[in-house]
Amino acid sequence: MIVMKTDATPEQIAHVVEEIKKYGLRADVSQGAYRTVIGLVGDENKIPFAHFATLPGVKEALRVEIRYKLISREYSKFSGEMIERRIVKVGNIEVGGKEPIIIAGPCAVESKEQLFRIAEEVKKAGAHILRGGIFKPRSSVYSFQGLGGEGWEEAVGASQWLQEAGRKFNMPVVTEIRGEAQVDLVAEYADILQIGARNMYNQDLLVKVAKKKKPILFKRHFGAGIEEFLAFAEYIAAEGNKDIILCERGIIPIGKGKDYTRYTLDLASVPAIQKETYLPVMVDPSHATGRRDLIFNMCCAAIAAGASGLMVEVHYNPEEALVDGQQMITPDELKDTIDVCQRIHKLIALRRNKD
Amino acid sequence: MIVMKTDATPEQIAHVVEEIKKYGLRADVSQGAYRTVIGLVGDENKIPFAHFATLPGVKEALRVEIRYKLISREYSKFSGEMIERRIVKVGNIEVGGKEPIIIAGPCAVESKEQLFRIAEEVKKAGAHILRGGIFKPRSSVYSFQGLGGEGWEEAVGASQWLQEAGRKFNMPVVTEIRGEAQVDLVAEYADILQIGARNMYNQDLLVKVAKKKKPILFKRHFGAGIEEFLAFAEYIAAEGNKDIILCERGIIPIGKGKDYTRYTLDLASVPAIQKETYLPVMVDPSHATGRRDLIFNMCCAAIAAGASGLMVEVHYNPEEALVDGQQMITPDELKDTIDVCQRIHKLIALRRNKD
Amino acid sequence: MIVMKTDATPEQIAHVVEEIKKYGLRADVSQGAYRTVIGLVGDENKIPFAHFATLPGVKEALRVEIRYKLISREYSKFSGEMIERRIVKVGNIEVGGKEPIIIAGPCAVESKEQLFRIAEEVKKAGAHILRGGIFKPRSSVYSFQGLGGEGWEEAVGASQWLQEAGRKFNMPVVTEIRGEAQVDLVAEYADILQIGARNMYNQDLLVKVAKKKKPILFKRHFGAGIEEFLAFAEYIAAEGNKDIILCERGIIPIGKGKDYTRYTLDLASVPAIQKETYLPVMVDPSHATGRRDLIFNMCCAAIAAGASGLMVEVHYNPEEALVDGQQMITPDELKDTIDVCQRIHKLIALRRNKD
Amino acid sequence: MIVMKTDATPEQIAHVVEEIKKYGLRADVSQGAYRTVIGLVGDENKIPFAHFATLPGVKEALRVEIRYKLISREYSKFSGEMIERRIVKVGNIEVGGKEPIIIAGPCAVESKEQLFRIAEEVKKAGAHILRGGIFKPRSSVYSFQGLGGEGWEEAVGASQWLQEAGRKFNMPVVTEIRGEAQVDLVAEYADILQIGARNMYNQDLLVKVAKKKKPILFKRHFGAGIEEFLAFAEYIAAEGNKDIILCERGIIPIGKGKDYTRYTLDLASVPAIQKETYLPVMVDPSHATGRRDLIFNMCCAAIAAGASGLMVEVHYNPEEALVDGQQMITPDELKDTIDVCQRIHKLIALRRNKD
Repeated sequence: MIVMKTDATPEQIAHVVEEIKKYGLRADVSQGAYRTVIGLVGDENKIPFAHFATLPGVKEALRVEIRYKLISREYSKFSGEMIERRIVKVGNIEVGGKEPIIIAGPCAVESKEQLFRIAEEVKKAGAHILRGGIFKPRSSVYSFQGLGGEGWEEAVGASQWLQEAGRKFNMPVVTEIRGEAQVDLVAEYADILQIGARNMYNQDLLVKVAKKKKPILFKRHFGAGIEEFLAFAEYIAAEGNKDIILCERGIIPIGKGKDYTRYTLDLASVPAIQKETYLPVMVDPSHATGRRDLIFNMCCAAIAAGASGLMVEVHYNPEEALVDGQQMITPDELKDTIDVCQRIHKLIALRRNKD
Repeated sequence: MIVMKTDATPEQIAHVVEEIKKYGLRADVSQGAYRTVIGLVGDENKIPFAHFATLPGVKEALRVEIRYKLISREYSKFSGEMIERRIVKVGNIEVGGKEPIIIAGPCAVESKEQLFRIAEEVKKAGAHILRGGIFKPRSSVYSFQGLGGEGWEEAVGASQWLQEAGRKFNMPVVTEIRGEAQVDLVAEYADILQIGARNMYNQDLLVKVAKKKKPILFKRHFGAGIEEFLAFAEYIAAEGNKDIILCERGIIPIGKGKDYTRYTLDLASVPAIQKETYLPVMVDPSHATGRRDLIFNMCCAAIAAGASGLMVEVHYNPEEALVDGQQMITPDELKDTIDVCQRIHKLIALRRNKD
Repeated sequence: MIVMKTDATPEQIAHVVEEIKKYGLRADVSQGAYRTVIGLVGDENKIPFAHFATLPGVKEALRVEIRYKLISREYSKFSGEMIERRIVKVGNIEVGGKEPIIIAGPCAVESKEQLFRIAEEVKKAGAHILRGGIFKPRSSVYSFQGLGGEGWEEAVGASQWLQEAGRKFNMPVVTEIRGEAQVDLVAEYADILQIGARNMYNQDLLVKVAKKKKPILFKRHFGAGIEEFLAFAEYIAAEGNKDIILCERGIIPIGKGKDYTRYTLDLASVPAIQKETYLPVMVDPSHATGRRDLIFNMCCAAIAAGASGLMVEVHYNPEEALVDGQQMITPDELKDTIDVCQRIHKLIALRRNKD
Repeated sequence: MIVMKTDATPEQIAHVVEEIKKYGLRADVSQGAYRTVIGLVGDENKIPFAHFATLPGVKEALRVEIRYKLISREYSKFSGEMIERRIVKVGNIEVGGKEPIIIAGPCAVESKEQLFRIAEEVKKAGAHILRGGIFKPRSSVYSFQGLGGEGWEEAVGASQWLQEAGRKFNMPVVTEIRGEAQVDLVAEYADILQIGARNMYNQDLLVKVAKKKKPILFKRHFGAGIEEFLAFAEYIAAEGNKDIILCERGIIPIGKGKDYTRYTLDLASVPAIQKETYLPVMVDPSHATGRRDLIFNMCCAAIAAGASGLMVEVHYNPEEALVDGQQMITPDELKDTIDVCQRIHKLIALRRNKD
């Protein structure tokens, strides 16, 4: 990190940026109220900090050991940017703003009719963003892989339906990009690009998706600690894309005997992550619990824990869904859930403002 | 499990109980609206079920594979007892009833003055039950082990203070029994006997504590799955003591890198356990997170998840506490927290009644 | 799975294969001593098994729930193929054969000189296959990402050096493919294509790599159970590529307090996996332990557990390595280790032959 | 830790010990080649180190943060004791010595006949120490709890049989103490007192057992990290009993899907623990894997990892055992296993001597 003097000139800043490039790294320039701070993106071992400390306009050249400095609240204080919370805007929706944001829709897009019917119903129930999986990551080659698994034409068709449904019912849409070959297609039709839990460590995919400069919904891997989660979000930020919505979706359950929930929803990670980064954090109780009968309580708990929103799988008839029927709720249940969550969010927000 | 006919006579029931004893097992007799059901406590391999099926008054003799039948909601249906929720009464406090119950107090009793001051302040803040550790389980022989570790006289003294403080400020009191030699002492002075997470698997201690016929606060081990947790609660119930308050306090964190919370609070276990058993479930966010700055959010989240109450460590000056200062909140913070939690509890309860 | 009659004609078999394709699945035809068995690759929900049961030449049409049937020893019995162990041949090296196979080399290729020097030394020490990372998966964007991270030209150069070093010292070479864009390049120069632990769940990458029809070294994710590991190996086999070498490299450590090893090497998974599949299993103690001083013992233990070989990171001067120096051993240490491992392998093999 | 001057007099040492007692701690005096070092056992917060530094004969008064200093190899260097390995002697058996020590016998003592038959057969097969459970920790109140669970008379009887069998076949005997009430009984009849995995955190039991001054077989809890394991072994050492045999028996498996082994045997913990402490480490593959067909390989792997011995469950007819039949091997299998393990031990020991 290169901290410039308060009176550093634009030329001096540009010179430092040039020098950084010479060493094979990139520069992330943050102009704050106090001063300009230049983040180093890449292998800092290559940087002669002593040399940079002597360049004109430079106040300090520091090696920062933290693995997620670009998205760090702490780091944003150096420049005086002082970012407490970043609001990620998608159309007129503000993730991380005053309202809890609800992403809802089917686990997988199965047909145009199914998608449009669910889209209409979740909109009525109060959802803000429409979800629908096209490329489904599955833990068996013998399971339905989403319409994206049926062929390219089907993938394109499903992507178009998703965009249409979003426009018709006035909701931005989000869907997962499972592999690098899908980035261009999904980025053309979706408003938010999702990177699923299984791909959290897939740095090549992260970089490729980040370059699309669209908001990214980034899910925590079920085996990842918080530090790793943020260190991989940093791969996205390092491409200059800070419109990142983090999403907790459960970690591997431990303990002998059968699992009563599919994963362990780590709700304390929500406020813990919010102390570290200014990025908004959402929660997906559907995949975390895998149980329809726990969704209401865990949505409420997530909002009470301080989450900026929820991602919930919804189907008008969960029993007939091709994927994950046992964890989907109905539009009526969604409406009830949103109603209680909004009230809890207000109670929590009141208290936060007292801090 | 021996299911009696609806018209079975008391003599027939007594005869079955006698027969069970002959095989070295005990009988748990549940008289419900429909009929009497006799649970078998002990090694069922010794029971000739075919023989029991032919005894007078017996409708069915079934082998039940579930490891926690005595505390199971499912099992309570056989007899028509149909227990949805059991309220554990401690004085005039009802754990599992209409109000969320707050257990609060210092991690460790340090002096009479410290205890009384905190007792007074948590009472004012709205707490219902007073806690205070006398025998502290510690993961180093080089740490303060509670006043119980200073000598027997100190242990007796601290136990008396706890009882006095509870009486003075009109709160039942709870403290942990760490070893078998402490059972008589603690049972003399405390209203609720706590079995800590590290002792969840300690079946000899469980049996000895259960025999005291006082309410038991039973904490989940940090490495235990839900099935194991309930199977060990069954050791208590098998002694005829069903006044068990279950408590989730966090499981071992997974993931590389540093832990941002001390344990992973498994809040989805709360509603999941409530589907299995009629026993009330509380949550201890203090030990789970180990972080004062997360207590408010995690208390709210626990109540939103459906918990019957909370166990919170409180100190007027957390910095000077001998044990776990970093996870204690002040009485003022407790008051705020209780206030928001009560409102959330109402929102959640409203919805539950619609089910 | 479609089991053909023993006297089914080639035409009947071809007809069944055609029918399978009509439903959007692929067919995996195994001709064994007894009969032909046709595996179904894809979503079996689409298959009308009753219909297939009536086709000419068909004995049985069975739904197989196991998620890894193509690589299963059990499944190989249906056709009479009876595969106990599959030997994966790479040049004149047989992985899964009579000798334990040692893959050795630097963690990362740093320069042509470094690579050639290490290649020469590991060859002398007794290694069979040369490794060297070009695209390094790293948990921080601020760490050295391998020469592949420096630019495409560097990546091509390093790949060529690797091929040259292998040819010069007569060893097949293996390197990791981290992202889809690297598949063509690596497949051109390497003899074995490695899919790293972090990409185990990356099904799109698996499919793309599998199509290259070269042997694949497939590492278990640190959060994956054995069933998942094999279910994802099945993605590779489903492309018709069964030259898969499985590799255990440690799972996430659990327990409070500092980690004494980087991951937990799950050596019992080696014989457990060998009961399930005929594929060879190797072990990587370098990444698993992260500690040079444990490598000798864990190599010996891996071979004693029944592993078909080892993957070990070696450097002539571990202290100066750019990546993972603390877990590399010297060529001299490698020689000692190979020597003892070969003797243990013989002791183990003797006993196995008695079974 | 109080480091005395090399010329400190016995009176000066005694004076320091007295002073330590005044503050409520105990003193662990180690007389080494160079000097005497006095360890402080108890809460070091109570000690005014500055004051101790000025006492006659004192060279240094240091606060040692490590939670397991009494059993630490590092710590033993201060006094010049320089303990590399401690041999725990039981009769004429040396655990931690030149030979790998095999503890074998039934999971549970079922009858005198069963015990004597197995004792005779394991002795012939080459075992050194006889095991047999009397008080079985079980995760269901509905399972056979050992003869100790049948009544006190049965417990005494089984303990006497165990002692007799040991004497008849010339093997020391070991059995588990599950609760505090069993300490006196077991200590009367057994040569080694076992503390099981579920009781690792039970500090009251540890202290009570340690006071018996007999060798202790101390098993790692399935949720415990190495640091915790050693910190609880320190509770035993702090009672002046350093005849501790550590035992790795598997930790909680992680990963979705069914478990292929009952626990995850953490073999890298064996050499890792041996770097920290001079105490011998054994391995129990029976409970760790829960699978008879993996015992041979995992015994060999444990010895290759550097273990000082093995604990194996043996039955002449595993199918008819009342407890854990699926993980027991026959005496013939034991003989084969011991044979190969002894050869591997020699190969490993040769190499160690080169260090």
